[in-house]
Amino acid sequence: MSAALRADLALVGFGNVARRFSRLLEERRQPLARDYDLDCRIVGVATRHHGARYDPRGIDVGDLPDGGSVTGGGHSPALHVIDRLAQSDADLRVVVETTTLDIAAGQPAIDHVRAGISAGCHVITANKGPVAFAFAALRDEAAAAGVNFLFEGAVMDGIPIFNLVRETLPVVELLGFRGVINSTTNHILTALELGEPFDAALERMQAEGIAEADPSLDLDGWDAAAKAAALANVLLDARMSPHAVRRTGIQKSDGERARLARAGGKRLKLVASAVRGPDGRVSATVEPVELPASDLLAGLNGKANALVLSTDLLGEIGICQLEGSLTHTAYALLSDLVTIGKRQRTR
Amino acid sequence: MSAALRADLALVGFGNVARRFSRLLEERRQPLARDYDLDCRIVGVATRHHGARYDPRGIDVGDLPDGGSVTGGGHSPALHVIDRLAQSDADLRVVVETTTLDIAAGQPAIDHVRAGISAGCHVITANKGPVAFAFAALRDEAAAAGVNFLFEGAVMDGIPIFNLVRETLPVVELLGFRGVINSTTNHILTALELGEPFDAALERMQAEGIAEADPSLDLDGWDAAAKAAALANVLLDARMSPHAVRRTGIQKSDGERARLARAGGKRLKLVASAVRGPDGRVSATVEPVELPASDLLAGLNGKANALVLSTDLLGEIGICQLEGSLTHTAYALLSDLVTIGKRQRTR
Repeated sequence: MSAALRADLALVGFGNVARRFSRLLEERRQPLARDYDLDCRIVGVATRHHGARYDPRGIDVGDLPDGGSVTGGGHSPALHVIDRLAQSDADLRVVVETTTLDIAAGQPAIDHVRAGISAGCHVITANKGPVAFAFAALRDEAAAAGVNFLFEGAVMDGIPIFNLVRETLPVVELLGFRGVINSTTNHILTALELGEPFDAALERMQAEGIAEADPSLDLDGWDAAAKAAALANVLLDARMSPHAVRRTGIQKSDGERARLARAGGKRLKLVASAVRGPDGRVSATVEPVELPASDLLAGLNGKANALVLSTDLLGEIGICQLEGSLTHTAYALLSDLVTIGKRQRTR
Repeated sequence: MSAALRADLALVGFGNVARRFSRLLEERRQPLARDYDLDCRIVGVATRHHGARYDPRGIDVGDLPDGGSVTGGGHSPALHVIDRLAQSDADLRVVVETTTLDIAAGQPAIDHVRAGISAGCHVITANKGPVAFAFAALRDEAAAAGVNFLFEGAVMDGIPIFNLVRETLPVVELLGFRGVINSTTNHILTALELGEPFDAALERMQAEGIAEADPSLDLDGWDAAAKAAALANVLLDARMSPHAVRRTGIQKSDGERARLARAGGKRLKLVASAVRGPDGRVSATVEPVELPASDLLAGLNGKANALVLSTDLLGEIGICQLEGSLTHTAYALLSDLVTIGKRQRTR
């Protein structure tokens, strides 16, 4: 095989996902080099509140304090490290975007992705905002700039969804999808079925780190709506934002509904779905649905997620994530990195 | 994009799968050309009992009588069309092997695959025999000859299993798998649970075309064992034959067991599994297992199949086939053909 591809990476966002990704890069340095010919180095780190650091010789992010109190700066720490990365002479320059979801407009993540693309860098992200709010534009900008914009972690963490459709289902036409793709609400609904009160279940999830301190993004269905929009945009060319998803979250009164459903042999699940109508338009919905026990989605407990793709040639195909962890999300970024390396080799 | 790749195909075996594949090629001629730059033509057909036909200008297989009573021949009809195909000047020469599974030794399918490879042709097959009995040898021979040997349809028809692992799970290590991968036994167990007697259920499945006239390959667990060996060979480098799989099929007495399991909130399923032991050796098993209702595999009814992959980085990943048809199996061959085209473009 030819010489290894040198990849310089700039981390935009330095929370749990970015830190786990950095460690995973080290842990898998050998297979990345041996099987994918990739030699990766982190040269930049930008955080929202603690500035930026850039070192063309590489940064040992293990040395950075927790919370990412890195120094450096200029205008925006993110734009600073992207500007510096653009000057690298590595074979691959990759912006790794892991800021948190903003449900109003997907910012500043979209600006970060766009800055990376304009600077001629590849961009990979675990943030669902850019693909949920601006997929078509960013895809086209990336294509025009000759770089990749990848986001496998936006839905179901590292379980391949976008790669599954792109790499393994040639010639197949996607007609729609439905899924249980928000873990917090699935955890809570499972607890409610068993008789735990809503507030107690939520507090327990927060104590266990499953639910956020502000759980409204999950409970109100926004997280699922952002994922539904991301899936609809990429798989069905929907060009919609999460605000166009018909959205009903879960609330206290769903406790009784969940228990009654279970007693009747059904399961109450927060289902995200999309379908292309007869007029060609895609409509997407997030809402609690009472599913018959025979439905694949009905069997998902706690952290389990699943997506059922509706196709013309293969009927329904289900893909299930049975566990979740920070490693799953970090792996999604790693798999995007490998995709970029493969494409670089074969173009 | 560059000029289309011309692919000349020889069908070895001309039963239902091959005929559906031929029609599918026609139905999807446009997307194959537009999106994958493939221009495919069937130039040869070989059947076991009715000779062979070869025409370098292409054969309209729609004209061939049902049952494939084609004329032509020489020694073996299969070897005849492979010899002829080897002389084609097309960009891709592809042998499409769809004979039925021989559980004694995987023959004559292995000979067909080997003849194709030796003749410098790519080989795709929906027959699980070659990969269950001789994967490592055929893979190495294909690599040495610079051709592809692909078999996506060997397990779960066209639902991507081998492509999923190869194309979408880089750097991930597979630790084992378990699955419900035989539809006939799953249909029968579902019927038994509901109180239908074994013989009645089997007769009904045979009348509906779900079970074969000789159902022993399914009932005795041989079909599942061949698939388990295929998966273990490819995903875990097991180098085993179906005869090395610890195998228990289903029998009349499982009716009572299935009903009792269901009454107790469980489901009796014929589970195929494999795992790498501490000594590095892979062991595989097919046996009826009483699964708790919370298990993904417990929820599969009738024709549904699923495989749960156990991985180091992503925990358990499930992939489910919720429907089955001849089109699914034919599609597997089409997806293998696209894989060959992609590899030809990028090598």
